[in-house]
Amino acid sequence: MSTTKDLPHISEVEGAKATTNPKSGPRRRELDIDDYVEGIRSGDRTILARAITLVESNAPAHQEMAQEVLLRVLPDTGTAHRIGITGVPGVGKSTFIEKLGTQLTGEGHRVAVLAVDPSSGVSGGSILGDKTRMAKLSVDPNAFVRPSPTAGSLGGVNRKTRETMLLCEAAGFDVLLVETVGVGQSETVVAEMVDFFLVLMLAGAGDELQGIKRGILELADMVAINKADGDNATKAKVARSEYAGAIRYLRPASEYWAPPVLTCSGLSGQGLSELWERICEHRRILNEHGELAAKRQKQLVSWTWSMIEDQLLSALRHHPEVAARLPQIEADVAAGRLTPTRAAQEVLRGFGVLD
Amino acid sequence: MSTTKDLPHISEVEGAKATTNPKSGPRRRELDIDDYVEGIRSGDRTILARAITLVESNAPAHQEMAQEVLLRVLPDTGTAHRIGITGVPGVGKSTFIEKLGTQLTGEGHRVAVLAVDPSSGVSGGSILGDKTRMAKLSVDPNAFVRPSPTAGSLGGVNRKTRETMLLCEAAGFDVLLVETVGVGQSETVVAEMVDFFLVLMLAGAGDELQGIKRGILELADMVAINKADGDNATKAKVARSEYAGAIRYLRPASEYWAPPVLTCSGLSGQGLSELWERICEHRRILNEHGELAAKRQKQLVSWTWSMIEDQLLSALRHHPEVAARLPQIEADVAAGRLTPTRAAQEVLRGFGVLD
Repeated sequence: MSTTKDLPHISEVEGAKATTNPKSGPRRRELDIDDYVEGIRSGDRTILARAITLVESNAPAHQEMAQEVLLRVLPDTGTAHRIGITGVPGVGKSTFIEKLGTQLTGEGHRVAVLAVDPSSGVSGGSILGDKTRMAKLSVDPNAFVRPSPTAGSLGGVNRKTRETMLLCEAAGFDVLLVETVGVGQSETVVAEMVDFFLVLMLAGAGDELQGIKRGILELADMVAINKADGDNATKAKVARSEYAGAIRYLRPASEYWAPPVLTCSGLSGQGLSELWERICEHRRILNEHGELAAKRQKQLVSWTWSMIEDQLLSALRHHPEVAARLPQIEADVAAGRLTPTRAAQEVLRGFGVLD
Repeated sequence: MSTTKDLPHISEVEGAKATTNPKSGPRRRELDIDDYVEGIRSGDRTILARAITLVESNAPAHQEMAQEVLLRVLPDTGTAHRIGITGVPGVGKSTFIEKLGTQLTGEGHRVAVLAVDPSSGVSGGSILGDKTRMAKLSVDPNAFVRPSPTAGSLGGVNRKTRETMLLCEAAGFDVLLVETVGVGQSETVVAEMVDFFLVLMLAGAGDELQGIKRGILELADMVAINKADGDNATKAKVARSEYAGAIRYLRPASEYWAPPVLTCSGLSGQGLSELWERICEHRRILNEHGELAAKRQKQLVSWTWSMIEDQLLSALRHHPEVAARLPQIEADVAAGRLTPTRAAQEVLRGFGVLD
């Protein structure tokens, strides 16, 4: 089939649903569901990018269309290796992903890099907004780098990223790297949409390590001390054994996998082969015990419920009667004038759920 | 006012709403809201116990009455020191609480011991069901030991325990010890209803420590290595420094409080004075910075929302149309035949929330 790139003069094409935009010249041909599905399946990057834009749109008509497209491509999804990567700003995520991704495409993989960054809508800048951060990978024909959707709510970014993952899988990408900078709950969100969750850390002098985010080590399927190069190599080894000491206090998520702590360098590439090998070993072991399929099914169902809850609570909060009374009810509860049980009853009655 | 204990022949009392039960003899006089409120305020243990039974009842009429009583006594609550205590079975919680509680009543405190044990309804046995576990404390006139409510759901136990805490506070107990055995999410539940959360641990040889429950250290305001007596004292010191090493990797909940790791012995009482001193220091520090009041207000509001969510989701799950379609929808999501977004839409439409 033809792609939009083959259509420089789309307005001349018979039957094309094209319009002209006086500011930017001829607009792109509108695609119907079949166009999207075929384009994605054939690995057409332009159509993939436009399908992601559709998924990211908040317009109801676009969302409806996006869901149709997703339903159609669902049978082509599910085989990719989904890997989440987190680490504080400065840990070297971009360099790490650039190097690992390039290594993987060199081995024949097709790699998609996505991001979850709930702050991007607020700060105006996406952590992956500047593709020059991954100069090689973003022009690699076997890689696809997509900036974080700029949306206010974490729930929105979450949905968009999950659905973008499916589109990329249907387009033939077999390794998905989902990056997050770790604002608020974003690591948990990413950990719940991937098969493997990698936490990048920096070596530092003792007390600096106290700044580790609560709960982050518990999400980790692996900890990698990055920038273990040059003068830093010795410090990284010390950090490695410190983290290994800390992580053994945590009960691992799978009885078949004890999260390893490695050192690596995204700059030199040192340690990346071993790191990737261990990631693949994790997949192999979880597959052997049926845990990977079970994990994914659980993720899907729990994500469904989390969307139901979000939308249900949002409907409740926006219900006129509830919205009118909520501030006073919350103030009364906080001040100890109203029991939470009675407050909950009042809110639910206002919403029409209780008699 | 007179208490039920003063009324051996209640059926003879003029105006008493008494009935006779042919099996068990004269039934207790029915109490009205004023009776409950006055009885609780005057510290009447029998009426307190009956008010707790009212709070624990699942009958709508009892719940309605319980809420009225709670609203009336709310002004008398809020001054007690609320302390949560957790630890695996065998850690020595009962002995610890018996010793600490007795020490506190000896210093003039009035101590209530409550329990959150969501398993009690299932297993049939409550962790505090047998008062002989705390032989001295349960007959101490300045202590009040109440077994865990036997209820199936954690949400139910949660509500009942929170409301029982208020009743005990209104009855003049100034120290509340809320114990949990740590099944499922019960530690989180307890941590969210107290001012201070104490985690009891055992010394053990290296690898045994791996069994620590995920997230438990993050909830701790203090870790105490119990049974640090006799031959165990040296092992306990080693464990103390290991846990202190692990806990420094976690960011504390308050910037003014770094959770300490102590050793103690519930059996000999060693370390309990220092432990209590530190707990009081925590309260002092949090109070100084206004964090205690803020923490409690946050707990109340978030507990209200958690009840709203529970009841809203329960109403959704029991909605006839939703209940009929839910199994197929969940199966389709798990099998990858339906996107979670679409599934959520279908469920919400069935519930009448989406158009």
